[in-house]
Amino acid sequence: MKSSTFDFDKKIYVEDTATIVGPREKAGPVGKYFDKDFKDDSLGQPSYEKAEIKMHISLLKYLLNKTKHNEKDVDLCISGDLLDEIMGTSLTMREFNIPFMGTYNACATFAECLITASMFLTTGKFNRIICSTSSHFSTAERQYRFPLELGNQRTPLSQWTVTGAGATMLNNIGGKVRISSCTVGRVVDYGVKDANDMGACMAPAAADTLRRHFEEKGVSPSYYDLILTGDLGDAGSRLLKRLMIEKGVELGDNYNDCGVLIFNRMAQDVGQGGSGAACSSTVFNGYVYKKMLAGEFKRVLLVPTGALCSKTSILQGESIPGIAHAVSFEVE
Amino acid sequence: MKSSTFDFDKKIYVEDTATIVGPREKAGPVGKYFDKDFKDDSLGQPSYEKAEIKMHISLLKYLLNKTKHNEKDVDLCISGDLLDEIMGTSLTMREFNIPFMGTYNACATFAECLITASMFLTTGKFNRIICSTSSHFSTAERQYRFPLELGNQRTPLSQWTVTGAGATMLNNIGGKVRISSCTVGRVVDYGVKDANDMGACMAPAAADTLRRHFEEKGVSPSYYDLILTGDLGDAGSRLLKRLMIEKGVELGDNYNDCGVLIFNRMAQDVGQGGSGAACSSTVFNGYVYKKMLAGEFKRVLLVPTGALCSKTSILQGESIPGIAHAVSFEVE
Repeated sequence: MKSSTFDFDKKIYVEDTATIVGPREKAGPVGKYFDKDFKDDSLGQPSYEKAEIKMHISLLKYLLNKTKHNEKDVDLCISGDLLDEIMGTSLTMREFNIPFMGTYNACATFAECLITASMFLTTGKFNRIICSTSSHFSTAERQYRFPLELGNQRTPLSQWTVTGAGATMLNNIGGKVRISSCTVGRVVDYGVKDANDMGACMAPAAADTLRRHFEEKGVSPSYYDLILTGDLGDAGSRLLKRLMIEKGVELGDNYNDCGVLIFNRMAQDVGQGGSGAACSSTVFNGYVYKKMLAGEFKRVLLVPTGALCSKTSILQGESIPGIAHAVSFEVE
Repeated sequence: MKSSTFDFDKKIYVEDTATIVGPREKAGPVGKYFDKDFKDDSLGQPSYEKAEIKMHISLLKYLLNKTKHNEKDVDLCISGDLLDEIMGTSLTMREFNIPFMGTYNACATFAECLITASMFLTTGKFNRIICSTSSHFSTAERQYRFPLELGNQRTPLSQWTVTGAGATMLNNIGGKVRISSCTVGRVVDYGVKDANDMGACMAPAAADTLRRHFEEKGVSPSYYDLILTGDLGDAGSRLLKRLMIEKGVELGDNYNDCGVLIFNRMAQDVGQGGSGAACSSTVFNGYVYKKMLAGEFKRVLLVPTGALCSKTSILQGESIPGIAHAVSFEVE
């Protein structure tokens, strides 16, 4: 396969970011880096789906306000979530007079949005694009696994879907942090069928994309101050390190995972850590971006990871392939 | 809102197309224009979802073969379908060693793929991209409406989801037909709640995109030999014409709809006509593309239309907004 790693010679900047999270995320190790949070994860809505929509709408309004922009200043929103037919995003975008494209690569969706937006901005036909993703523990549980009321025991390898939403406003005008390159992922299937072991479903795809990124860009892991997968979780991250060694690459102390960062795994009883389409978008847009503005990280490689499944595919005995896209950021 | 209509000055060509359809589509008015068809819409699979996946895989293999390409000649697949989590597409892409991005805008997905691919090709970083969508009557019925075994009566305004898949191979190298411009749509909601009246859900979005396309491109409907919405169906098309008159634009004899074209509405008992993510991709890639190669259409405006809903959103009393993106093709 020819190279699927691309440098962005025309500069793509992060104009600003915004994040909103639920109480468990706010109480986690990087809680102070999120812009907004709420105590009641129903947000006063009659369903958790409506809560997720309200949260995503609130986030985009906040981002527009923060950046002192009107809707007409934004050329496009490229967004997605984990709900069937990405309904959260579609009903969010109903509230905005902004052109919209829906994306879905499970929890890798945020990376797909960033790459797509960066390519669009590179053409010069667009100047400002918002990329956003949301997820909600309660909507994901009942859609992918079991109703909350059932009170099922959680398996040791399960993860906790992040309740939150993260948005990045990109432009080709100016900013302190820019997107420097990307590697587009492909579907990788190691035959894992356990819907409660998302880490193992996704780690092979992350390994594939990471190896290709280093090889095609001609850098080693130490080129980056931080390499961050999306939501492999604790066991999944350790699995990734082993897979990378098999590929001849050693991930060192500069490697971490958004799902591991966002929760205190033992204190917060979240299994292997956070997951969900908003896991990478909240951790990056909150914690990582602020650290980059402060100069603590100069080069970051973000690799959101997705497990490609639906309740139907699982019930029909399909395995759960993964996909991962890589996006590198550098301080300007 | 600033203009969301873009011309493609760097040329984006259709290298070739491929279509595969089920028996009802093959028996329809444009049946002879499809490349492949099958008699048994289960394709010998134990589920209709697996049938849809087998169909989509078969289509992409056929397209690669037809164009004498290997997987490594294709830089990216941008694809989607109507299944929850676009699982049909994800499990299709598992079989190919090609980078993949998943898209979802319901039955407007095909246009979203084409626009995204065109922008990517414009950057010069990609040279060849496949855009594809699939749908299947049986998978759509049971996911969005009712199990087939229930034998529900169909309402007068309902449509028939196309069983099929269509793919377009785009490049920035050469071809007889090129993508000349596009208009990116936005979510438009007129408050329609009837999941059996998709035409009314989508017509307002089609009207919004069409009006903006004509205004921003500075052309009238007569500029095109054919203006084709995706799947408004018969009543939905007539509704669109009325909405356009309210906007001061008259759609004449050069206006038609893929859902109306693909079936003989009265003889085939398909309600208002075809629908589904593959409605526009089969009719365009089969019928329209061949007519353009023959010089019978020189300028075509394709406007795939999507109704944004899930079974959950409908059960929660949400209305069904629409979205429509426009893509114009010209003979080189």
